[in-house]
Amino acid sequence: MRLAIDVMGGDQAPDAILKGCIAAAEHLDADDRLVLVGPKDIIEQTLRERKFTDARYLIEDAPDVIAMHESPTSAVRAKKDSSIVRMARLGSPKASDDERCDGVLSAGNTGACVAAAQMNMKRLPGVHRPGIAVTIPAFHGPVVLCDAGANPEPRGSHLWQYGVMSDVYARSVLGIENPRVALMNVGAEEGKGSGIVKQAHELLKATPGLNYTGFVEGREFFAGAADVIVTDGFTGNTVLKMAEGLAKSLFQAIAQEIFEHDPKMAMQFEPIVKSIYKKNDYHEMGGAPLLGVNGSLFICHGSSESRTIAAAIRNARLAVNAHVNDAIVARLAEVAAIDPAMRQGEPA
Amino acid sequence: MRLAIDVMGGDQAPDAILKGCIAAAEHLDADDRLVLVGPKDIIEQTLRERKFTDARYLIEDAPDVIAMHESPTSAVRAKKDSSIVRMARLGSPKASDDERCDGVLSAGNTGACVAAAQMNMKRLPGVHRPGIAVTIPAFHGPVVLCDAGANPEPRGSHLWQYGVMSDVYARSVLGIENPRVALMNVGAEEGKGSGIVKQAHELLKATPGLNYTGFVEGREFFAGAADVIVTDGFTGNTVLKMAEGLAKSLFQAIAQEIFEHDPKMAMQFEPIVKSIYKKNDYHEMGGAPLLGVNGSLFICHGSSESRTIAAAIRNARLAVNAHVNDAIVARLAEVAAIDPAMRQGEPA
Repeated sequence: MRLAIDVMGGDQAPDAILKGCIAAAEHLDADDRLVLVGPKDIIEQTLRERKFTDARYLIEDAPDVIAMHESPTSAVRAKKDSSIVRMARLGSPKASDDERCDGVLSAGNTGACVAAAQMNMKRLPGVHRPGIAVTIPAFHGPVVLCDAGANPEPRGSHLWQYGVMSDVYARSVLGIENPRVALMNVGAEEGKGSGIVKQAHELLKATPGLNYTGFVEGREFFAGAADVIVTDGFTGNTVLKMAEGLAKSLFQAIAQEIFEHDPKMAMQFEPIVKSIYKKNDYHEMGGAPLLGVNGSLFICHGSSESRTIAAAIRNARLAVNAHVNDAIVARLAEVAAIDPAMRQGEPA
Repeated sequence: MRLAIDVMGGDQAPDAILKGCIAAAEHLDADDRLVLVGPKDIIEQTLRERKFTDARYLIEDAPDVIAMHESPTSAVRAKKDSSIVRMARLGSPKASDDERCDGVLSAGNTGACVAAAQMNMKRLPGVHRPGIAVTIPAFHGPVVLCDAGANPEPRGSHLWQYGVMSDVYARSVLGIENPRVALMNVGAEEGKGSGIVKQAHELLKATPGLNYTGFVEGREFFAGAADVIVTDGFTGNTVLKMAEGLAKSLFQAIAQEIFEHDPKMAMQFEPIVKSIYKKNDYHEMGGAPLLGVNGSLFICHGSSESRTIAAAIRNARLAVNAHVNDAIVARLAEVAAIDPAMRQGEPA
């Protein structure tokens, strides 16, 4: 297997990324290749400093960088030699046979990764719009949230496909048997919600072989009510970031409260916090696939540490080996008749 | 001042509601009136059982009830004698002068409350669409979130008005000087987000006298980055419920972890949790006003306890005394020229 990684993506790039790549050596088979995409001199120097030599590691020189704050579409168009664009190209049908990678990873500008993947990889047959599927380490087990931000203004049929594709992903990669698929809404009752949610609800209900459990409210998100939660990219992205911020703020508030109450207790509480973080550690969850593109892009958290990257490489190997894309294409063909827009060949 | 309360609304109605009304007696002035709206026999019996007599308390007989799960618009149309519809009518210009209430409260079906208020109270001059403004007791101080669910598919100009109205509310009722108003988005950079967000962003930027600080991401929600956060009703509702569910789940996870780790520590931790809950207690925050209607409706949490209701009555008095609606009308007239849709008299 051949994987490519954008070494310039993320708040702690390139150091944490390269360190993570080195740590991932133990997960790679003898005939695997890991292509480090970024400025050749920086990569070579870092590997030298770390006295790391491994014939399975290759370098793809990409002198340019797309920064975290840059406007995705224009940056991807302008910076053909950036690590993100080069990485996306390596993972696309545009790459030559001996260069083409089975999966690519980045912790960089998410919008730019999505744009570069869409431009280079294009969509899988039958897919309206790609969506990001993030696996959240919730208290009752992993929850797949799709879309986490690729498509802020989806149609109902896009949401429907996110449900179908995430179901395939949860089964084949996470090994969840008959995943409970739910649709995020402002109420659990029929007739609630926006137009696109109502449309997606009807399509999901009509999908054979899908364990669709109906609407789920924000309150049930962390209560173990569903294995897959479908929503628009705007809500998904907001909810994901808010959960992260709230958990952090809450632990800070607890720490401060303990300190004011009884500083000695702080030391006792530390292992508790560590244990909870370990059980619900997003650093171990790997990258989030952009489902629906003809390739395998895994988007990692912007604040990825070296262990986040090592875990993402390990998980990317599992995902590629699970042949998710083949399963998605087959499944979408199977249920295509449900979605009239698809039958009529409406532009996606 | 005359207030009306729906005694049949909420998970613990009518007991907790009536108990809360009784507890609120201390907050009422001698010439205040509190109208208890619901089935007369139930109200009379409960007051008798509690040996409560107070000439400031009146009863409005409303034999019918709209349940929490009922479809709002059809229930409001069909059940004219429900406590929610009667309550909304009492707080509207439709009520006779001697009956008309300055403010009304309910912990019942939120959608039905919004629908009943819109039908009876109508909109304030210049308002496109009413929005629910919830005050969240965040760690760095209160945050006003608008809209929390009245309008799941707003236009950009609706979002803009939520910013303007919530700013007035934060100043006049919460006493926040020059509130920092932010717009929820999937990124902090210019050019990010959906079409309505971009439109609202331009309108908010162009509004004189508004301390608009730009986009805010979900991550900053609980980090004290803004005093007022504007978003669509779908995202607002989801985020609000998710925060509640996550905080609850996190405390449960901590409790379980402590118990597994060292059961003796559980007792030590209890006062810490209680203190944090007390500092960030939504039961003390009062009802959330539906900003933009020609009346004062305060929507209380569905799981309101008696103390939630007592606090809501206390806060409703403060809000009514602050004359928020007059200030909103004046402020919207002042900034009307910014919004072309308003100038052109486009249907809202």
